[in-house]
Amino acid sequence: MFEAAELGHTVARAAFNRIVPKLRSDLLDAQYRLKENGTFPVIILISGVRGAGKGETVNLLNEWMDPRHILTRAFDTPSDEERDRPAMWRYWRALPPKGRIGILFGSWYTAPIIDRVFRTTRRSDLLQSIEEINRFERMLADEGALILKFWFHLSKEAQRKRLEALRSDPETRWRVTKRDRDFFEKYDRFYRISEETLRATSTADAPWIVVEGADPPYRSLTVGKALLGAMKKRLDAPAVRGRPVSKTAPIVHPIDRRDVLSELDLSRALTEKAYKKELRAWQGRLNLLARDAKFPRLSVALAFEGMDASGKGSTIRRVTASLDARTYNVVPVAAPTDEERAQPYLWRFWRNLPRKGRVTIYDRTWYGRVLVERIEGFCSEADWMRAYAEINDFEEQLERANIVVCKFWLQISREEQLRRFEARERMRFKRFKITPEDWRNRKKWDLYQSAAADMIERTSTGSAPWTLVEANDKKFARVKVLRTICKRIERALDEL
Amino acid sequence: MFEAAELGHTVARAAFNRIVPKLRSDLLDAQYRLKENGTFPVIILISGVRGAGKGETVNLLNEWMDPRHILTRAFDTPSDEERDRPAMWRYWRALPPKGRIGILFGSWYTAPIIDRVFRTTRRSDLLQSIEEINRFERMLADEGALILKFWFHLSKEAQRKRLEALRSDPETRWRVTKRDRDFFEKYDRFYRISEETLRATSTADAPWIVVEGADPPYRSLTVGKALLGAMKKRLDAPAVRGRPVSKTAPIVHPIDRRDVLSELDLSRALTEKAYKKELRAWQGRLNLLARDAKFPRLSVALAFEGMDASGKGSTIRRVTASLDARTYNVVPVAAPTDEERAQPYLWRFWRNLPRKGRVTIYDRTWYGRVLVERIEGFCSEADWMRAYAEINDFEEQLERANIVVCKFWLQISREEQLRRFEARERMRFKRFKITPEDWRNRKKWDLYQSAAADMIERTSTGSAPWTLVEANDKKFARVKVLRTICKRIERALDEL
Repeated sequence: MFEAAELGHTVARAAFNRIVPKLRSDLLDAQYRLKENGTFPVIILISGVRGAGKGETVNLLNEWMDPRHILTRAFDTPSDEERDRPAMWRYWRALPPKGRIGILFGSWYTAPIIDRVFRTTRRSDLLQSIEEINRFERMLADEGALILKFWFHLSKEAQRKRLEALRSDPETRWRVTKRDRDFFEKYDRFYRISEETLRATSTADAPWIVVEGADPPYRSLTVGKALLGAMKKRLDAPAVRGRPVSKTAPIVHPIDRRDVLSELDLSRALTEKAYKKELRAWQGRLNLLARDAKFPRLSVALAFEGMDASGKGSTIRRVTASLDARTYNVVPVAAPTDEERAQPYLWRFWRNLPRKGRVTIYDRTWYGRVLVERIEGFCSEADWMRAYAEINDFEEQLERANIVVCKFWLQISREEQLRRFEARERMRFKRFKITPEDWRNRKKWDLYQSAAADMIERTSTGSAPWTLVEANDKKFARVKVLRTICKRIERALDEL
Repeated sequence: MFEAAELGHTVARAAFNRIVPKLRSDLLDAQYRLKENGTFPVIILISGVRGAGKGETVNLLNEWMDPRHILTRAFDTPSDEERDRPAMWRYWRALPPKGRIGILFGSWYTAPIIDRVFRTTRRSDLLQSIEEINRFERMLADEGALILKFWFHLSKEAQRKRLEALRSDPETRWRVTKRDRDFFEKYDRFYRISEETLRATSTADAPWIVVEGADPPYRSLTVGKALLGAMKKRLDAPAVRGRPVSKTAPIVHPIDRRDVLSELDLSRALTEKAYKKELRAWQGRLNLLARDAKFPRLSVALAFEGMDASGKGSTIRRVTASLDARTYNVVPVAAPTDEERAQPYLWRFWRNLPRKGRVTIYDRTWYGRVLVERIEGFCSEADWMRAYAEINDFEEQLERANIVVCKFWLQISREEQLRRFEARERMRFKRFKITPEDWRNRKKWDLYQSAAADMIERTSTGSAPWTLVEANDKKFARVKVLRTICKRIERALDEL
């Protein structure tokens, strides 16, 4: 993979000077077309060996284009807010919105490669990271992002020369650190591991572009032209996001109309007396768990889904009642804001992830993609189809960062929903008014049920299983939810 | 101020139980009306002595209302991202958007009072903090926020009893910390200082409500009823933000038509040769300054304003060209996003403040309020009139946090603007197209000039002076801007 980047490519300074003015104005033009077009972001990854001109190139891109519409982010030591969350959180928060260019200096490749070079991880860890990166980048591409990954390479000889040159000039000597020397000693190992990583992550959606870093004019032109070419190609292409949207998602009903939801025994109920006793017991237990000495080492994400009027809000209130308000945050998921719409679908959920020792409660969740968005045709079939895998990846990352993920589907019968709608209409409070939309959704009951059954089947994983809650009786439902949360947190605390 | 909260107020449990159901449902109703109304946020501050039921009350409010629409934030140790910015940054990022309730547990009062109690600050510091807080809260109120400040008080005797009770019960003993004992020892001093602070910050916009904390039913009802009363009063009032908007702001032209801008000598220019030399010299100097060993201890905020086509963008590019792209961030200020519109005007600028060692460049700024928003009538006269003082407060906070604030007004003549507009129209690049809006703004040249002169006069402070840049000659302008930035950073580094 690196052979072609050790050929000693050069471009004469005169040729460079001749080519650059046109390249710059073309790049600037493409950048403005991107801004006006506004339908996709450009994500540029800058990686590679030390001393191969990465920093210089980042500066040059900012000089050639309009820096007002470029977001450059460098990733060194994570902040404490970043350390408290899954490793990818810092990259999610740095993603450029649609219409802008984001330059990520250092990226999700840095840690997997470096950790393996210095043997703090095993080979299997690297392979797992590679697979996750591929899925992450495919998601970005599916969300419309144009991804350019540049790897700056220097042959061992070229790197030695460059370090020596830096060292011998008093003006630049400060730039050669102990870390540079450590890296150089590991050159061969770094070469092998990064080559393997690049090969395995050079996909159709996000191919690597290896750039020989020794000659500044050569590497600058290579990057500039590759960027220009990719942007123009994309901008000139007919609208990529215009995949046909299937207004009626092809939901297959099981022939016998039986699924995980229809099999639930909705007659399950608690007496008032049993409810009071159980509720108090589990609320007390949850309260104690959240004050456990080890609790600050994990976080909790609670996800609530269910048909309208299935009791999500009142159940959430029974959960929050047992927690200290300083430790939780409830996120009601409604229409996305415009900042959220300019990002990949999962971005709005990533931004609300809890810090260590905290609880985030999502009232409706990322599963909206495969429920309401699927049924109502708010996204294309391709979009919701890929969401299952994306969601599994997302939740796996949460689990790995010691976030306990509990997902609840509150199931009521169609008759019970009608009863609750009618009761709400009779209530004097305006807040309980039933909207025409509620009635419309109700008409699509079967579609929603099938989509939910589908979702549960595809996303109930070992680490983040769905808990199906028989919710015709609110008392039973609340206790089941509380008990599940307690048990899951207990297990997680035991495993710490 | 605290006498009335030492009377031993109580409410019988039976009466409490009788009153609460109605209070809860009224609060819930008010909360939903707030959400539907969506024109203002409710900010609840919870402060006071330790052990007076603050935490319990926060939890109760979350239990009584719908926790999905309450943002509760507790402030203990700042994160490193917070420590890197002005002290108020953490509060700005925690402000609830319009339509929601924010409960701030601990607030901008905590540090000024505690620091003074433990004598880490002087009396004059406390007085200054008080003044700043009053201005900050007035701004919040002017932006529409409903502010409720609760102070939970316990008499010395009541506090002693409560601590003893906690200590004697093995279930609660853990809650009494060394810090509690330290505080109790300083009770009298804490009493005096907080009383003085409360008295001085109990304003018409944001009065304090002192709550006797000894009796849970009493304190809960007091808080609940005060909150309900304030919300209902505000929700029932005719739209508060409906102040008359003066479409043509009353701008007074100086009789002799001379002002700071008209006095500028726009013929100032540099030869191509001098420009090249100076540009290189100042760019090099800026580059070195940003790599100074002490630079990571300060931050830089550069603010660019000027008429259309005055050369802001190209000047900014000359500045960024001398910096490492990893250290700066350019913020092009256009129409606010919907998340920004749901917050006070300055919020969008606070959110982009640089961390230590970083530079934020604002292309158009918070001064939009007293320029385009004033001229075009996008905000009321009262709004832009108060903006001058708010902006001065804002910039003073930046200065105090070691942020070097450089503000540039790029001045061109009306003829020069016409020349540049026409040149742009002749250029082939779409990005330079002149919009009808540009021509419309041009017609209001005199209004903009007067508003700018007004602004410069009112907001050029010792620590954040305006630099007026004669910009008919772009070369001259760029060098002046670079030189100013260098000198300001040099002075700041010297003073560290």
